[in-house]
Amino acid sequence: MAAPNIEGWTCPIPLQHYPTIVLGHGSGGKMMNDLIRHLFAAEFKNQWLDQMGDSTGIDIGLYGGQRMAIATDSFVVSPLFFPGSDIGELAVNGTVNDLAMSGAKPHFLTAGFILEEGLPMETLGKIAASMARACQKAGVHIVTGDTKVVNKGHGDGVYINTSGVGFIPRGRKIEPDQARLGDVVIVSGTMGDHGIAIMSMREGLQFDSPIQSDSAPLNGLVEAMLAAGSTAGPAVRCLRDATRGGLAAVLNELAAASKVGIEFEETKVPVRQEVNAACEMLGLDPLYVANEGKLVAIVPEELAEEVLAAMQANPYGQEAVIIGRVVADHPGVVLAKTAIGASRVVDLPSGELLPRIC
Amino acid sequence: MAAPNIEGWTCPIPLQHYPTIVLGHGSGGKMMNDLIRHLFAAEFKNQWLDQMGDSTGIDIGLYGGQRMAIATDSFVVSPLFFPGSDIGELAVNGTVNDLAMSGAKPHFLTAGFILEEGLPMETLGKIAASMARACQKAGVHIVTGDTKVVNKGHGDGVYINTSGVGFIPRGRKIEPDQARLGDVVIVSGTMGDHGIAIMSMREGLQFDSPIQSDSAPLNGLVEAMLAAGSTAGPAVRCLRDATRGGLAAVLNELAAASKVGIEFEETKVPVRQEVNAACEMLGLDPLYVANEGKLVAIVPEELAEEVLAAMQANPYGQEAVIIGRVVADHPGVVLAKTAIGASRVVDLPSGELLPRIC
Repeated sequence: MAAPNIEGWTCPIPLQHYPTIVLGHGSGGKMMNDLIRHLFAAEFKNQWLDQMGDSTGIDIGLYGGQRMAIATDSFVVSPLFFPGSDIGELAVNGTVNDLAMSGAKPHFLTAGFILEEGLPMETLGKIAASMARACQKAGVHIVTGDTKVVNKGHGDGVYINTSGVGFIPRGRKIEPDQARLGDVVIVSGTMGDHGIAIMSMREGLQFDSPIQSDSAPLNGLVEAMLAAGSTAGPAVRCLRDATRGGLAAVLNELAAASKVGIEFEETKVPVRQEVNAACEMLGLDPLYVANEGKLVAIVPEELAEEVLAAMQANPYGQEAVIIGRVVADHPGVVLAKTAIGASRVVDLPSGELLPRIC
Repeated sequence: MAAPNIEGWTCPIPLQHYPTIVLGHGSGGKMMNDLIRHLFAAEFKNQWLDQMGDSTGIDIGLYGGQRMAIATDSFVVSPLFFPGSDIGELAVNGTVNDLAMSGAKPHFLTAGFILEEGLPMETLGKIAASMARACQKAGVHIVTGDTKVVNKGHGDGVYINTSGVGFIPRGRKIEPDQARLGDVVIVSGTMGDHGIAIMSMREGLQFDSPIQSDSAPLNGLVEAMLAAGSTAGPAVRCLRDATRGGLAAVLNELAAASKVGIEFEETKVPVRQEVNAACEMLGLDPLYVANEGKLVAIVPEELAEEVLAAMQANPYGQEAVIIGRVVADHPGVVLAKTAIGASRVVDLPSGELLPRIC
């Protein structure tokens, strides 16, 4: 990996503690944020990249004041198939959700495959069939693709990149820096299902009913939420799907971007009993475990009940619940109130607890 | 890699000879075409994917009758740095060129990184710096990205996916099925430089002056070509960059899509002396070796000289030359006339001669 023909490059100071890439750089937490901010964003700097959302909104002069949204996501989940889902469905839903989190209606996907020599053709066929089904469910189309093959031992069966294009209707401004004092925090359902479904399989944990991944397309849920508040200003300020780093990562990012504090009641966060049990066995905190079909919304207080009702009427938001609120104190900091009335700071995850989860 | 939760999948007959993925499925030749056609395209079928171009043009109601173009490309080249270029520059130019080959002006890129644990931070920094320089040169912007890390032994340093969005001005219809009888075939310069630069490095071949990759953004060249013929109808019918599978793969794809024959004079194909020498040592045919900064154009006869002059005036087309013509005989077949006046069929490559070239 010598780099003979590129002139000198100086490692930005915040990255100097890690002379090489470690798993934590893909964690969705502080190490990944440092890598993105100090290496990629510093090199690629432009007005669009600076949005730092799940997808990027761009004005390209579309009719009706719509903006285009672009997102990209690579999937390296191991194993390729797991209870409730597989890498193919995950790859479609992941990019659909990244687009939806900026208020875009997802339309077009690309699919880039990196296949490892020796992958059974049947495995690839099943993954492609699963992607096709997921596209149909989400109402999107794969319009172009690319296939590369790497030698045995230089991949892990299949890696998939999906990139996506959607369109944001005029007037929607759903961005991480839009949270305002008094807004409420809603989660769309139980936390931690996806990560624990995979970890249970890897660790061989047995349950009466196996924990299923929650992989789901959330574009319909988002449209339902936004329709709810259409009569009284924007119904939703911020949206994020709680993937790598879980609820904790999302709340920290929103608090930082909006320069506000966030407080929530830990007992209100919905977590399945089996997920809680598995988390105890594995030494994990469900607040930090990845989801693939759940979102976190910050909503104006006066519209919260209306948005919540719309969510609960949608198949992917039936267990939606208000868990907390945006506060003036401790900007950038997320506090959880525990069952016994104490408060604890919920930090960004730093290292990597759950590698290769998506 | 068991697939427990997806129902049965039946392998399409043309793929049954290969129960597992082999390197040839990434070759740019017949095996890859079979995989794309019978597995991916069969599952993902839609009107846009059916275009089967380097990028896909989509009417989204843009002002002035423009269409949006979308492309995606993953890069797994080994080694990461090689004479004349590196994986970062390649990743930017590759998607810029895929967009340009449909007549689109490239604007926005996404960047998805799959990093292997243990990758030196400096290597990644140099790759990102190289991508930034390539973006500046091509006039495009990386507007969103994604970073995943895989365990040591499950990658090869860095894999990069870039996807891109551009816009096709009204009236441009540059597609693989547009070749017409009597059209001429132009190549923009020497063939085989990129592939041989990499193979020479891998095989430890020494030359007085090392063979350099030709990696280059071709969007400016395409605009110059299209401007040349603006007074007398479309100046260009078909465009392809001659990447995996080289000139031979491109000519075969165009002949098949347009249902025409193509004949060219082998002695007119420009090949550097060192590349020819290396090809002889390695047992390769330069017609099948990948380029990363060269295009093949099919152009109406009456505009050919004008287009050729425009190409030769551009830094990336100085060695452009007419090599052949579209004929009525043998539709779908490509014939090379050899130095001694004989003809030979130039087939699509079948297996894989040069793995991990891009």
